[in-house]
Amino acid sequence: MATTSWVPGADGSGFGAENLPLGIFATEDSPRPGVAIGPSIVDLSMLIRERLIDDETLLDARSLNAFLAHGPGAWRSLRTTLQRLFGEAATPSEREAVTRALVPRNAATMEMPIDVADYVDFFSGIEHATNLGKILRPGTDPLQPNYRYLPVGYHGRASSIVVSDTPVRRPHGQRKALDAPAPTFGPSQMLDIELELAFVTGPGNKIGESIPPDKVREHVYGYVLLNDWSARDIQAWEYVPLGPFLAKSFATSISPWLVSLDALEPYRVANRILDPEPLPHLRVSENYAYDISLEILIQTEQMREQKMAPAAISKTNFREMYWNVAQQFAHMTSNGSRIRAGDLFGTGTISGHEPGTYGSLIELSWRGANLIALPSGETRTFLEDGDTVTLHGWAGSGATRVDFGEVRGTIIA
Amino acid sequence: MATTSWVPGADGSGFGAENLPLGIFATEDSPRPGVAIGPSIVDLSMLIRERLIDDETLLDARSLNAFLAHGPGAWRSLRTTLQRLFGEAATPSEREAVTRALVPRNAATMEMPIDVADYVDFFSGIEHATNLGKILRPGTDPLQPNYRYLPVGYHGRASSIVVSDTPVRRPHGQRKALDAPAPTFGPSQMLDIELELAFVTGPGNKIGESIPPDKVREHVYGYVLLNDWSARDIQAWEYVPLGPFLAKSFATSISPWLVSLDALEPYRVANRILDPEPLPHLRVSENYAYDISLEILIQTEQMREQKMAPAAISKTNFREMYWNVAQQFAHMTSNGSRIRAGDLFGTGTISGHEPGTYGSLIELSWRGANLIALPSGETRTFLEDGDTVTLHGWAGSGATRVDFGEVRGTIIA
Repeated sequence: MATTSWVPGADGSGFGAENLPLGIFATEDSPRPGVAIGPSIVDLSMLIRERLIDDETLLDARSLNAFLAHGPGAWRSLRTTLQRLFGEAATPSEREAVTRALVPRNAATMEMPIDVADYVDFFSGIEHATNLGKILRPGTDPLQPNYRYLPVGYHGRASSIVVSDTPVRRPHGQRKALDAPAPTFGPSQMLDIELELAFVTGPGNKIGESIPPDKVREHVYGYVLLNDWSARDIQAWEYVPLGPFLAKSFATSISPWLVSLDALEPYRVANRILDPEPLPHLRVSENYAYDISLEILIQTEQMREQKMAPAAISKTNFREMYWNVAQQFAHMTSNGSRIRAGDLFGTGTISGHEPGTYGSLIELSWRGANLIALPSGETRTFLEDGDTVTLHGWAGSGATRVDFGEVRGTIIA
Repeated sequence: MATTSWVPGADGSGFGAENLPLGIFATEDSPRPGVAIGPSIVDLSMLIRERLIDDETLLDARSLNAFLAHGPGAWRSLRTTLQRLFGEAATPSEREAVTRALVPRNAATMEMPIDVADYVDFFSGIEHATNLGKILRPGTDPLQPNYRYLPVGYHGRASSIVVSDTPVRRPHGQRKALDAPAPTFGPSQMLDIELELAFVTGPGNKIGESIPPDKVREHVYGYVLLNDWSARDIQAWEYVPLGPFLAKSFATSISPWLVSLDALEPYRVANRILDPEPLPHLRVSENYAYDISLEILIQTEQMREQKMAPAAISKTNFREMYWNVAQQFAHMTSNGSRIRAGDLFGTGTISGHEPGTYGSLIELSWRGANLIALPSGETRTFLEDGDTVTLHGWAGSGATRVDFGEVRGTIIA
């Protein structure tokens, strides 16, 4: 059921009236909330001042946190209002007001959409976890005994979350070659990416209160793309026994547009069959898998100089993740952990079954054993300075496609 | 060099003019900043309104974050001003203004002193790490190969940090007996504590910038006590390969008073000799160990009913930690991680060499093998519902003692 829009360029752009992702944009004015529609952004504060939208949490806000805290009633009310304003039923005066509030997306800079309260990264791609186990612990069971019983995750660093197009400085750290007597300190030689989605929460709970999985849509607003930059050499040396730390906390990039679960509703698909069946507190009665297409693109400095477009090195889909958003969310609160508006939860690296569908370079190059060929004739195992990595995601196709846009970052020395 | 104070009850209380810890207190009015002096709190907003203090970041503030962000110049200026106002050189009109601003501590409720930006927990007590290795991985080297090369740490959950006297709900979670075929879900049966200090940061850096160890006093304001409540059964099942997660994130308690590094300056002592010598980026040219006495007290429900005082089950000292604050801070930023005002960094569990000096129940009871005897005739291995745990810390003795106060929590079902 396509929603047609009178806004120029909206229909079929991936940012039509089905999508309506929210973000924080800046022009010469201060950062403020906007909704993407076609090649434009609508300045929501202008529509609030015109009394076409009645949600004051968005007025000149520097982040979407207050809106997220407002909860699903407010989220759905805004979506309904925007679909009416951008749809064929809009009155002439409404169309004029919206037109006055349009800003070309290519004239705006996107800022962080949320103040990240806490950041968690799950590990729910079973193909990725299996590949990493095979690469890092050959000859043993690649999956740890807990993997099929709970959504393994760890806390990350909220201050490390940056918005798309923020340059990523190659981190220094300790790394130790297997045959070296001691570690050395210097720039990471195994700089990697991880293709993920991440969900963003709203109202939350009080500390000590659990939230069951089927309540997830009252608490999760939607998804962004996430690139969990990873220094594999630093990680290998530091991570036992307390997990990844400095190998991840130098930067984690997200896409600027929050795509709501409501926009993704048509792309909800059957849950993966889990074996063994989860314990009762992780059982769900609805589908929470989403059919979202994803790709990883690389453009080296040489490709940029030769005006070659970024090249796709992997194409995959989100639908096959082992643990879904409802189970991740219920697990997180099963011990009474407090969720706040603006919490960010990475899904874990999204890898398919075939080599060309893996979500990290350590898998694509099998830890450097295979060279990744690029159209410039160059090859990669891990990232070089000057490389730009872009993650792109979308659901559906044709007129009603829902696009996430991109998350992009360039490595600097 | 004792500073004498005219404020009633200040001298020798542990909260004299040498200490001057800052916190956020509430009476019938809104929470606001105060400084502890003897049995009282001085309401700093009143002194700002009287123009006796010129730091507007503290005026009616709900947290100390803006003051912390202001940096060491502001920190030292406030300390100098307060020492003059509370000292013998104060004028009669200043004494009157301070007296009007006094609030009895027992009439106030202490709130969270900071909005925690990011929370990290280090693992820098080598005796604790060794004990845990012996208990959890018997027959292997108890220390991991990286332990003596870097301050191992992990990210925790900022939303889980609660102030002293917040009740702690026993968490539910998955735990699996070694001989069981599968895990079960239910209340933790191995609820533990960890005796720690935690440092709080000020100005911070830009992402991508490292801070060398000897700059630490420009960035670290001071310390609080921290109880890192830990569900050992949940932890054992979940922590491989990505580290502790739900076993810790249900609650982490801190003491309400921030004790500054300036107050602790007389108690700075020689660094522990590290073997091997750290890599250059972790070498320090000054002493950063602190002689701080610590104790763990327990009061069970039965003891409370019988009006028995809390009993000390461990006494130890902070001075022997393997990695110090300067090294922890430099390690954290060595990859360019961003530090913000209000970041909280746990030191790791503080254990001495002897059984009565250990900082956790898993060590004191050697994972349940030894019963911990209490004066009521009861015994403990791990915590029971109704148990109150109090951590207490202080530096020095006699007239100039600098007290941290307490961090306290009671387990509820």
